[in-house]
Amino acid sequence: MGLLAMQKLGVGRSKNHEMRIFSEMGIGHPQGCMQDGIMIATGATFDKGMIEKLYYGKIAAIFWYPGMKGAVRIYLRNEFQDKLATHEFFSYRKKGIEPTEIPEEITNDVLNIILTASEEELFDVTMLLNFEYTPVKGSFAKAKCEVCDEYMFERYLRIKEGKRVCISCANYVSTEKSISFDKHQKVKACYTLE
Amino acid sequence: MGLLAMQKLGVGRSKNHEMRIFSEMGIGHPQGCMQDGIMIATGATFDKGMIEKLYYGKIAAIFWYPGMKGAVRIYLRNEFQDKLATHEFFSYRKKGIEPTEIPEEITNDVLNIILTASEEELFDVTMLLNFEYTPVKGSFAKAKCEVCDEYMFERYLRIKEGKRVCISCANYVSTEKSISFDKHQKVKACYTLE
Repeated sequence: MGLLAMQKLGVGRSKNHEMRIFSEMGIGHPQGCMQDGIMIATGATFDKGMIEKLYYGKIAAIFWYPGMKGAVRIYLRNEFQDKLATHEFFSYRKKGIEPTEIPEEITNDVLNIILTASEEELFDVTMLLNFEYTPVKGSFAKAKCEVCDEYMFERYLRIKEGKRVCISCANYVSTEKSISFDKHQKVKACYTLE
Repeated sequence: MGLLAMQKLGVGRSKNHEMRIFSEMGIGHPQGCMQDGIMIATGATFDKGMIEKLYYGKIAAIFWYPGMKGAVRIYLRNEFQDKLATHEFFSYRKKGIEPTEIPEEITNDVLNIILTASEEELFDVTMLLNFEYTPVKGSFAKAKCEVCDEYMFERYLRIKEGKRVCISCANYVSTEKSISFDKHQKVKACYTLE
């Protein structure tokens, strides 16, 4: 999918901070590992801030490149999803058996089906002509927390009772996530992200 | 950092879905690429759903492993952050010069400083004794959108005017993100994530 996207956009692998990817995948479902392949193929890695999830739960991704009008959306075709779902590999996975515990010949067989499928069989490709995106401007500016003395990047500095503090020390519980974290206290995390 | 975490937890690389990592990094700041290294070292990749960002803007990460009580937190020491910040490599980066455009000998020099530093010089390691985490239970269940006919994983199915729809077709704008996406309309995305 990553290779096809680069071909459709007429670009090469991102050595620096070029391509941006919006994966339509989410959490609590399989096949997210496809995104590892997309990162390796395109060089647009999670940790360079170049790929993120939209949490739509779809096996699809949008590929944007600076200076180009619009973006490319690539979706794994229903027919191919149906074909893949019947494979014995997924019978094992649905039983909760981990990938490395599945007999190798079964894994190799499903990989072979994917690797030999044509692009037409695999993907629906759409050009999103009106897609616009402005990357966040990065900053090197840092600040020090007056409570725990650790550094943080300035955008995450908070004020609490007049003190300049980090988010952990501010102890402000975010309503968007149901995880609260304090370095010295018990942490429980259950995900209701969408 | 990843290698040290595995050592402290007494575990090996995650071939399946073992280790979970909570990176304290965020967006709009540098040094996020450290997380690529953490993923490679530990096998806990973003796309297997095994690492996520807490958006605290700190150069730190929390490492949790199933069956173990608590977690390990590793923070890049202030003194080392200060030492690194003075390196010529970052003068270039602060001017907006991309990594591959920086003279190789400068890049190699800063890499060498990091690679030859001892663990004690690099990291503050804390055991979080009361850290608890319950991974999201995954499901293979799928549903089809009655409007666009695409598959999505069931947890992301929505109802709109009685129809079973995907998030894109539901057109519900999430208040937590300032990005709204519809396959056929103009999309503008400016990030205020924290």
